[in-house]
Amino acid sequence: MNEDTFSLVQKLLGITIDKSVKISFAESCTGGMIGSAITEIAGASASFLGSAVTYSDEAKMSILGVSADTIKQNGAVSAECAEEMANGARRIYNSDIAMSVTGIAGPDGGTDEKPVGTVWFGFSSCDKTSSFIRIFKGDRDKVREAALKQVIFFLLEELE
Amino acid sequence: MNEDTFSLVQKLLGITIDKSVKISFAESCTGGMIGSAITEIAGASASFLGSAVTYSDEAKMSILGVSADTIKQNGAVSAECAEEMANGARRIYNSDIAMSVTGIAGPDGGTDEKPVGTVWFGFSSCDKTSSFIRIFKGDRDKVREAALKQVIFFLLEELE
Repeated sequence: MNEDTFSLVQKLLGITIDKSVKISFAESCTGGMIGSAITEIAGASASFLGSAVTYSDEAKMSILGVSADTIKQNGAVSAECAEEMANGARRIYNSDIAMSVTGIAGPDGGTDEKPVGTVWFGFSSCDKTSSFIRIFKGDRDKVREAALKQVIFFLLEELE
Repeated sequence: MNEDTFSLVQKLLGITIDKSVKISFAESCTGGMIGSAITEIAGASASFLGSAVTYSDEAKMSILGVSADTIKQNGAVSAECAEEMANGARRIYNSDIAMSVTGIAGPDGGTDEKPVGTVWFGFSSCDKTSSFIRIFKGDRDKVREAALKQVIFFLLEELE
């Protein structure tokens, strides 16, 4: 993790601790990068409960409770799947808020409709469930790194 | 991830794909580093199903099925907990093998009996459940990086 990202993650962790907000994640294309980034900081356990890395569709369904219909009809890279993943993470970790990431990091797996770099993000709290899409440029590393940063930016905005 | 670790992870992934072995993980002190390292490699989904990052004791119990008695009697950094975590990961991801990591990355949390750098590893397959301990020197980053490498070394030896 570069210095910039480290500072942002540190800031986020500080805010969650100050506000006593417990957080969890559900990761697909980031594969554990979010959890890894947060736990690089000593004391992360004060607000970080965990992250369910669900790389296979089966794990998204069995562990996070994403419905088979959602994946069949919309694919794993979709608003619906991202929202169900976030809700699932919040439920299984019993956290206050949860965020999910599901996307196509490449180099394979892209289509005309969902090109490489397409990433859906889900957010879940007791008040609301929401999702948004970003299409990142660059190779696998760049897409994954951009997705990690997007999660941090979104949560900083949401919590500040 | 440095070049050396990347090569080792790439080698491990190649072997799991060649042998059609599906793998999963349960991570505590590594916080997602294992999943992150494996998914840095394109095509990881052919054998990597996911990784349950369970940073809190509650998540180890509710998600991985670690028993409350185990944590109460032995602590989360113990052979018993590592083995239950590995068994839990194999069960919830329905993988052929699973590995777990639970340790004290520091700088806080160490005791005379379990100093900073103490890490327990668990392994689970249909044939056996096992565990082993390593005590790594160095700061938080070094301990976590050493734990990641240990997982890769162990699995390479186990599968070759």
